[in-house]
Amino acid sequence: MAHSIADIARALGLQADGDLDLIVTHVAEPSSATRDALALAMDPKYADGLTAGQACAAILWSGADWQGFGLKAAIFAPRPRWAMAGVSQVMDPGYDFGTGIHPMAFIDPTAQIGDGARIGPFVSVGARAQIGPDARIGPNASIAEDVVIGAGLTLHAGARIAARCVIGDRFIGQPNSVVGGCGFSFVTPEPSAAEDVRATLSGDREIRAQKWQRINSMGAVRIGDDVELGASSSIDRGTVRDTVIGSGTKIDSVCQIGHNVQMGEDCMMCGMAGVAGSARIGNRVLLAGKSAVNDNIFVGDDVIVGGAARVFTNVPAGRAVLGDPATKIETQLEIRRALRRLPRLAATVAELQKAVFKPGQRD
Amino acid sequence: MAHSIADIARALGLQADGDLDLIVTHVAEPSSATRDALALAMDPKYADGLTAGQACAAILWSGADWQGFGLKAAIFAPRPRWAMAGVSQVMDPGYDFGTGIHPMAFIDPTAQIGDGARIGPFVSVGARAQIGPDARIGPNASIAEDVVIGAGLTLHAGARIAARCVIGDRFIGQPNSVVGGCGFSFVTPEPSAAEDVRATLSGDREIRAQKWQRINSMGAVRIGDDVELGASSSIDRGTVRDTVIGSGTKIDSVCQIGHNVQMGEDCMMCGMAGVAGSARIGNRVLLAGKSAVNDNIFVGDDVIVGGAARVFTNVPAGRAVLGDPATKIETQLEIRRALRRLPRLAATVAELQKAVFKPGQRD
Amino acid sequence: MAHSIADIARALGLQADGDLDLIVTHVAEPSSATRDALALAMDPKYADGLTAGQACAAILWSGADWQGFGLKAAIFAPRPRWAMAGVSQVMDPGYDFGTGIHPMAFIDPTAQIGDGARIGPFVSVGARAQIGPDARIGPNASIAEDVVIGAGLTLHAGARIAARCVIGDRFIGQPNSVVGGCGFSFVTPEPSAAEDVRATLSGDREIRAQKWQRINSMGAVRIGDDVELGASSSIDRGTVRDTVIGSGTKIDSVCQIGHNVQMGEDCMMCGMAGVAGSARIGNRVLLAGKSAVNDNIFVGDDVIVGGAARVFTNVPAGRAVLGDPATKIETQLEIRRALRRLPRLAATVAELQKAVFKPGQRD
Repeated sequence: MAHSIADIARALGLQADGDLDLIVTHVAEPSSATRDALALAMDPKYADGLTAGQACAAILWSGADWQGFGLKAAIFAPRPRWAMAGVSQVMDPGYDFGTGIHPMAFIDPTAQIGDGARIGPFVSVGARAQIGPDARIGPNASIAEDVVIGAGLTLHAGARIAARCVIGDRFIGQPNSVVGGCGFSFVTPEPSAAEDVRATLSGDREIRAQKWQRINSMGAVRIGDDVELGASSSIDRGTVRDTVIGSGTKIDSVCQIGHNVQMGEDCMMCGMAGVAGSARIGNRVLLAGKSAVNDNIFVGDDVIVGGAARVFTNVPAGRAVLGDPATKIETQLEIRRALRRLPRLAATVAELQKAVFKPGQRD
Repeated sequence: MAHSIADIARALGLQADGDLDLIVTHVAEPSSATRDALALAMDPKYADGLTAGQACAAILWSGADWQGFGLKAAIFAPRPRWAMAGVSQVMDPGYDFGTGIHPMAFIDPTAQIGDGARIGPFVSVGARAQIGPDARIGPNASIAEDVVIGAGLTLHAGARIAARCVIGDRFIGQPNSVVGGCGFSFVTPEPSAAEDVRATLSGDREIRAQKWQRINSMGAVRIGDDVELGASSSIDRGTVRDTVIGSGTKIDSVCQIGHNVQMGEDCMMCGMAGVAGSARIGNRVLLAGKSAVNDNIFVGDDVIVGGAARVFTNVPAGRAVLGDPATKIETQLEIRRALRRLPRLAATVAELQKAVFKPGQRD
Repeated sequence: MAHSIADIARALGLQADGDLDLIVTHVAEPSSATRDALALAMDPKYADGLTAGQACAAILWSGADWQGFGLKAAIFAPRPRWAMAGVSQVMDPGYDFGTGIHPMAFIDPTAQIGDGARIGPFVSVGARAQIGPDARIGPNASIAEDVVIGAGLTLHAGARIAARCVIGDRFIGQPNSVVGGCGFSFVTPEPSAAEDVRATLSGDREIRAQKWQRINSMGAVRIGDDVELGASSSIDRGTVRDTVIGSGTKIDSVCQIGHNVQMGEDCMMCGMAGVAGSARIGNRVLLAGKSAVNDNIFVGDDVIVGGAARVFTNVPAGRAVLGDPATKIETQLEIRRALRRLPRLAATVAELQKAVFKPGQRD
């Protein structure tokens, strides 16, 4: 991964100064950087670290006095996280998927694998599967029958793509992620207790025996381009139509997306978030960590669901929501403030009661 | 999957009308149905879709004017979801588990596999394991030593059954599900800080170093008939006795069941729900999405735990609970209503204070 | 696993009485114990079970009248859970990892495996990986290139260790656990809507299109000695520096730890808990089931985070917190009490309003 400062600056489209021919081999935090590292110090808070470390080159905040830190070369980043994305493309050591198709992989003879594939040991590709060019598949991953996947697939160790799922270009499946487990859909011959409670919002109901009959998932999962699915995360297949994930949507680790969900483009779903069956999620929706959307709910474009929020009702486009149950963020913050003061409020009301109602006066 | 309308109606035990010899090859939503599809339109809301699509046959709501939609044949479903279950049995394209035992599977010579097994590549079956007839096992799944499983197993890609677990008939393990990981059970030589806090419900306590000593799981997991376990879900083994899951219980994706849990029959546990160690769950309990039951808690028969509810105390049979901490659903809904009005309530109390207590009057 | 009572008592460092040469083959709960079992009855509540079962030997609470239960031998446990840990070491039937390296495993020729390894079928070990002595690796597990692992590794079926991760001695990875999936780190060219909402704590913002650019994870995961990771749990790799898990820390099933997290020693993280990216967690922190720590948060040493609590702000050392958002446990319990009384409080305020403000009087 050795690159000159000039090359890196050019790749990032950023200004550089000093010895542009200097070679760096990897990135490091400023304080632990060795002489051949490119220190990432895009905020003044890293100034002390720069002084403590041994880096000769760094990416710095705009206007930093690079020579004052004893550096030989520097690149300047007006938007640090954006620069970080660029640096991480250039300097990423990447992953070793081997060369060609490993002799201990099993590729069904009717499967079609595009040029340039690198496939590890104990990978299984099912009948009639079609995989685009430049696929990289880690050990023990599996792709089932009749799956169709575009170009530039990265499927890490143990990831699963179940039958008939259709996935666009540049999909990344992290280790042990799952696309296309069966939907969780069962029915009782008579309306179930849960259906009663939902209808009445009351616990009063007839108790009766009930056996669950399975509704098989006849649909699959359809995923756009540039989607990523995190480690141990799962997207269930649809009942009749496919579960759909739009292009550009990113899903973190240990997330779950239920059957029939229709999720839009460029969404971001953070760790341990969940979307229950048949929910519809717009474009550019952000679901923060541990948040949840109830089944059959509609969430509009550009909605932001805060950390651990529980969405039980439809959310119009553009809204930011928080809490359990989720409300507009402003309302929730007001509720939380009032809640912190609630014990004191109760004490005040008790005082008022005492002052207003003489003993025996209040019937 | 080609079937005549007459055959499908007979399999579902439903009435049909029109050209009963008409052949359909798959199911579809009404609006996107092609001429050879069976449109699923079991609610009047699909009327427009029926008109827009091209289906010649449909399953309709009771009393629908099938000829008015230009259909050639129709089946009538008085309980749509129940009909859906039947249709999904008849029309499911299913999964390809290959034929026989794949040459790249490893079956320990002391394992016993029943007749009719279909086992994929890179499957491992351990010593002395006993698997009933008609097992279907997807690629990269594994069954450890001394496991006993009944008839009609379906184990999808990457699913794990650990040592000594005992499972009934017709078990379905979704991709990357886990039965029999070790319980999470540790102890410190002296009572731990957590034990102190639990006992006193207070943060005041002596701070001291503590190393965790592991309690190995000597028990396993015992599962009844007709149980399903979702993708990336996990059931931990017991410490002394087995963790138990009763017959007919269905568990969704990304769920967790802790060590020693005793769960009854015909329960339903939805996505991302969790049951902590040593909890006892009755029969026909419904745990909605993201809900949780604390360790050592008892939850009676027919209890319904609402979405994201946290059960910290025992719940008597038949109750519906909601919230964090969970209360009776009626109480929780009352609390939530009051909570939404809390900022306004605080303002009212401030007004009352001003009216009742003159400045300086209140000591 | 047959042992004499004398041997077991010696291994546990506990007192025994009766026929110390008596042999037991396994442990059992008192009520279901057979004649060759060691009944575990370390609390008087098991007295009835002892009478009902057939055990000839038991581990009992201090001072129990062992002869009165018809036992031939007994061991006495002053701290039951600590004794349980010892018993579970002695009597654990353990797991069968085979002998040597299975012929259907793939070990890269440049990998170094220490003496005494037992490696199952379809295991993959990547280039230049270094694994210490006495490793036990279950079927379908994988260890990627340049991983370094200490002595006494136990890696169960389907567990994944990704490239360049460094792990100490005696690591236990449960089935389908994942170390080293990529961090979830993305950036938009301009500040994103989520950044706006975080800055203003308001939903008011300009809506705009945004595409997510990936920040690759150039760091890995570094794990100390004696760490355990539960089934289907995931630890993401770091962006520049490594994600770090300190020695002695135990992580339950279906947990998630985000990129860059720095977690201390001897922590305990219970089922379905999550720690978001770049959070710093001290030593001996307990994260109870389903709890969550927000990204970039600092949690001090010896903190106890209660069940399902959501930590959105820094927590000083030693504190016990509970709730969503988490507060000191005493505050939270006070809030919860007040919340249960909230509907009644609202009714009281309405009465007060009526008494204090005559109709029309309040402007």
